[in-house]
Amino acid sequence: MTRIVVDAMGSDEFPVPDVTGAVMAAREYGVEIILVGDEAKLGPVLAAQDPGSLPVRVVHAPEMLTMDDKGMKLVLKARRPNSQNSMAVGIDLVKNGEADAFVTAGNTGAASVTAYFRLGTLPGVDRPGLAPAFPTATGSCVVIDVGANPDCKPENLLQFAVMGSVYAEKVRRVKNPKVGLVSNGEEEGKGNELVKGTVPLLKASGLNYFGNVEGKEVIGGKVDVAVLDGFTGNVMLKASEAVAKMLVDKIRETIKGGNLLTKIGGLLVKPALGSIKKLLDPSEHGAAPLLGVNGLVFIGHGRSDAIAIKNAVRVAKDAVEAGVLAAIETAIEESLK
Amino acid sequence: MTRIVVDAMGSDEFPVPDVTGAVMAAREYGVEIILVGDEAKLGPVLAAQDPGSLPVRVVHAPEMLTMDDKGMKLVLKARRPNSQNSMAVGIDLVKNGEADAFVTAGNTGAASVTAYFRLGTLPGVDRPGLAPAFPTATGSCVVIDVGANPDCKPENLLQFAVMGSVYAEKVRRVKNPKVGLVSNGEEEGKGNELVKGTVPLLKASGLNYFGNVEGKEVIGGKVDVAVLDGFTGNVMLKASEAVAKMLVDKIRETIKGGNLLTKIGGLLVKPALGSIKKLLDPSEHGAAPLLGVNGLVFIGHGRSDAIAIKNAVRVAKDAVEAGVLAAIETAIEESLK
Repeated sequence: MTRIVVDAMGSDEFPVPDVTGAVMAAREYGVEIILVGDEAKLGPVLAAQDPGSLPVRVVHAPEMLTMDDKGMKLVLKARRPNSQNSMAVGIDLVKNGEADAFVTAGNTGAASVTAYFRLGTLPGVDRPGLAPAFPTATGSCVVIDVGANPDCKPENLLQFAVMGSVYAEKVRRVKNPKVGLVSNGEEEGKGNELVKGTVPLLKASGLNYFGNVEGKEVIGGKVDVAVLDGFTGNVMLKASEAVAKMLVDKIRETIKGGNLLTKIGGLLVKPALGSIKKLLDPSEHGAAPLLGVNGLVFIGHGRSDAIAIKNAVRVAKDAVEAGVLAAIETAIEESLK
Repeated sequence: MTRIVVDAMGSDEFPVPDVTGAVMAAREYGVEIILVGDEAKLGPVLAAQDPGSLPVRVVHAPEMLTMDDKGMKLVLKARRPNSQNSMAVGIDLVKNGEADAFVTAGNTGAASVTAYFRLGTLPGVDRPGLAPAFPTATGSCVVIDVGANPDCKPENLLQFAVMGSVYAEKVRRVKNPKVGLVSNGEEEGKGNELVKGTVPLLKASGLNYFGNVEGKEVIGGKVDVAVLDGFTGNVMLKASEAVAKMLVDKIRETIKGGNLLTKIGGLLVKPALGSIKKLLDPSEHGAAPLLGVNGLVFIGHGRSDAIAIKNAVRVAKDAVEAGVLAAIETAIEESLK
């Protein structure tokens, strides 16, 4: 039975969504759940879920990392062997072979740094990359990196491409995934120095390299994996989310402020608009893997609800069962030959 | 009377939208229009608009720049003194003082390079920046640079900030504009090396520096000017446009594919959705100024229709009459003290 550690102190509204979602996952997906966090806080929430004979257990972690844990303070907490925060304790369970994957809806920076120092990177990987699935016109696209690495070299982008490609193939079940390099124009001559340095590496990589793509092609679903530095990726992710939110808000506002017929129309199209909101809802897409660390780590949105946590556990389970870690290790090895 | 040169060979559907929009602008805004382009092609279109005694005249330019003009080929055409393409001829009219601003809906790269070589940059400006207005939750935000400079240094970003701030104040009439530096997180410690190097320059600049902002804050309308390198800016712009388009398409699709009530609702909310589309329509926002060249140049979307061209002329007229060029020159001088 696949064993997933869930950080019970992760989401903005912890521990309720985290614990509830984890128990739902145990029930629906037949996974073993290990909840890490403050026993006193999560115990009652767990009891209320009536887990009965479900394979759910608690590992006590009295502390937690928050948005305030950054810089050197975070590095120290991430490295200290006896750290008692839920992320360190949870990731150590993966490291020691007591669990197969770690899921958290906590601070992305804290989770990435803790995973990096406690698990280390796979051989041949210089930097891990955070790889969420973007909703696109035709489905979704694995975008790597969206924030772990603000400054990158071409070698980092090549590694992101290899890892993203394996992930798309193994977990998102895309055969021979098309890999695009995000640039300010599709033409090969375009791009910043980083992009220009990366093109020859991708061409020689043996990956299914599609060429340079703009945001348009990514959102349009032209590629299965979109590779870019973490700074640009993060700005792109946040702007896309914000545009989508603004649009949905404006539509709602306009309908509310409209005449009676518009309001009636609004009621009639409400279910249709609901399905659009779902498309953009992070809870539908589970969590993003931090690829390249020596263990499976999934980081969800702070705003995750129970459904989002449940979906994150499902994605983690899929990744474990698809053997994605070993596959990435092999692919990176191959890419170094 | 303010004299605006309009590239009649610019838009994807040239010369009809370009000529029609320019004549509309002459009629509505009381500007003098100089159309540059192939007389044989634009003459009949102009005649059909029945310009009568409107101050509209044609300057013949037998050639045009297209998407194929790039790299060294473009540089040569941009630099050659006797170039006969509509962009070179039109920009020379501004350079020689025969016109006050140049408007084109042609290839952005071609227009930027032609303007850069023919007009040169203002003293103290290393690189011009393209500065469109992004629609935001509260109005719009001047985003600079979105593509002219894929690789930037902190000094370039400082210059963008100074120019964007003057433009927001003079043309978009924002008092003491708030300037944000786009980063992967609002905290001051976050960012890539470029952002970290730019923060102290902005702090010492005397601008109304708001701090670091994410895409969220830009779209949310928290700042009036958003500064970033042209690579990230271009990716952000294209992804935002694509997300908005995908969303509107999906809503339309869902309503079309819905049951009868949904379809009726769709008809009733159509005007409301129309106003949303308008919000995202590039034609509503006119054209983006290329700030930092020694002359006023506005570059619109290739998909511009006549209304977009008309609006672009209006924005150019506002910029001329607000004395934005001299104001930028002064502000850049001040920033060097």
